[in-house]
Amino acid sequence: MSADLLSSWHDTKTRARILDFITRVTDPAHPDFVPEPARVAVFDNDGTLWSERPTYFQLLFAADKLNQKARIEPELLESDVMRAVAAYDWDGAFSGGVAGLVGVVSVTHSGVSVDAFQDDTRDWLQNARHPDTGRRYTEMVFAPMLELLDLMRARGFQVWIVTGGGVHFVRAFAEETYGIPPERVVGSTGPIEYRVEDGVAHIFKLPGLEFMDDGPGKPVGIDRQIGQVPIFAAGNSDGDFAMLEYVTSAPGPRFGLLLHHTDAEREFAYDRDVHLGALDRGLIEADDRGWCLIDMKRDWKSVWPEA
Amino acid sequence: MSADLLSSWHDTKTRARILDFITRVTDPAHPDFVPEPARVAVFDNDGTLWSERPTYFQLLFAADKLNQKARIEPELLESDVMRAVAAYDWDGAFSGGVAGLVGVVSVTHSGVSVDAFQDDTRDWLQNARHPDTGRRYTEMVFAPMLELLDLMRARGFQVWIVTGGGVHFVRAFAEETYGIPPERVVGSTGPIEYRVEDGVAHIFKLPGLEFMDDGPGKPVGIDRQIGQVPIFAAGNSDGDFAMLEYVTSAPGPRFGLLLHHTDAEREFAYDRDVHLGALDRGLIEADDRGWCLIDMKRDWKSVWPEA
Repeated sequence: MSADLLSSWHDTKTRARILDFITRVTDPAHPDFVPEPARVAVFDNDGTLWSERPTYFQLLFAADKLNQKARIEPELLESDVMRAVAAYDWDGAFSGGVAGLVGVVSVTHSGVSVDAFQDDTRDWLQNARHPDTGRRYTEMVFAPMLELLDLMRARGFQVWIVTGGGVHFVRAFAEETYGIPPERVVGSTGPIEYRVEDGVAHIFKLPGLEFMDDGPGKPVGIDRQIGQVPIFAAGNSDGDFAMLEYVTSAPGPRFGLLLHHTDAEREFAYDRDVHLGALDRGLIEADDRGWCLIDMKRDWKSVWPEA
Repeated sequence: MSADLLSSWHDTKTRARILDFITRVTDPAHPDFVPEPARVAVFDNDGTLWSERPTYFQLLFAADKLNQKARIEPELLESDVMRAVAAYDWDGAFSGGVAGLVGVVSVTHSGVSVDAFQDDTRDWLQNARHPDTGRRYTEMVFAPMLELLDLMRARGFQVWIVTGGGVHFVRAFAEETYGIPPERVVGSTGPIEYRVEDGVAHIFKLPGLEFMDDGPGKPVGIDRQIGQVPIFAAGNSDGDFAMLEYVTSAPGPRFGLLLHHTDAEREFAYDRDVHLGALDRGLIEADDRGWCLIDMKRDWKSVWPEA
């Protein structure tokens, strides 16, 4: 395959393995050829397509919303977790695990129509800036991964996001940012309801968390929305382990890709000891399972797009 | 648009209205032009793409499965509804509404992997015959609707099924029968679980009904899987009313289509007084809402494909 492909990637074994897989499954003469309708590739979002430090960007959105609402309803800051989120204290925010955050999600992600919520999300993404880099969050996507998405689409792959993030949040920017249309985003969901008010029909977001698209939830989300086993999966944490296992234990040519954040200088360096996005079992088992590890520092020429 | 399109349709106002809509939204010079990614069309399945008499074909599948299982476990036929289904007595089967059928669905649609269930579904569709017509069920699809699906796809529409039927059941034949791939089927779902057994990962079907994709559930299912409001919706019963309302009350060019089963000679004639698939409110409000009614007897040259 042409040498100018994946040009933000150094010419390492990682890049070669990815290109080799794409070549094999798209070459009608190769025994590993996969017809286009089965060329399904799934990508995690947080930490795989964009950064996730100091915490999930969606939680930064929730914290901003919570502070906005608490100015009018101070009683919202009733619990330790609520107060921690409002203070951007992430250790405190995760003190009860992800389950402890359902209240925050309910307050900041419900009581509105999907349309209004997504307008609000886009507005926030336009105006908010990352606390450390000063960039827009959508400017903290990984240039080498954008290249990979483009290359796979050009080679007849259906490219999907399978994210622990909220499906309405991610759909609000996935098309513009990644070229991924709303129907190709699988994510976590809260309960929703069909409503008709003054002759206008809409989908209304209710409080609560209905489905967590993380860990063993990822294969479940894939079955619900995609209905076939992808041939390629990319992630960066143990929350993606089941997804990679599901994809790569099926027969036929399969590819599992894990992004290891090793670049404290250009992005962040972390794996085992973080309150979210920890990569531990994946590092231990990647070799045995034939999964390809991206070493960000070694494999990528650039990380984020030029500002 | 060329006169040889939709050739199984008589040259009536119905056909003209459908062709006019497709022309308008696909003509870049027309004010109603809709770009390809937003050309989303949703079709109900039972009674819209294939027949649904004497009952939903999936329930005939369930009845055959139930009888198969009851030969080994006769205690399965413990309730009146179970016995009615096993006896192919549809009035009895629906005596507790659709909710009364959850037990039947659980017994016949769970305890297996999705793959095994779909193999079984395809096997049944290959071998079973309709009690009245002697046809395979997949030979009771509507030829004029297959033409419409083809025409819309050729004109850059994404064509989806949004069905009250089980998503795994419909996906087992949608690609071969309608050319609709698994990821474009939205349907009712039971709980599922990710499992790894002897190194083989799969999705396992658990008992129960988790989501009923009917009535107000259809717009909910559309939001979950498609994430944007379609511009075209076709159905045949009041279970499709909310879907058509959701689609056609949104701004911009929209089309609602209802199939009225008026052809006792070639198919079946029914609307208000049936235990399932009743069309009542739709008939009353179609005109006011600008929905197009297909009169099967008057509008279609043929119904099923040549046997």
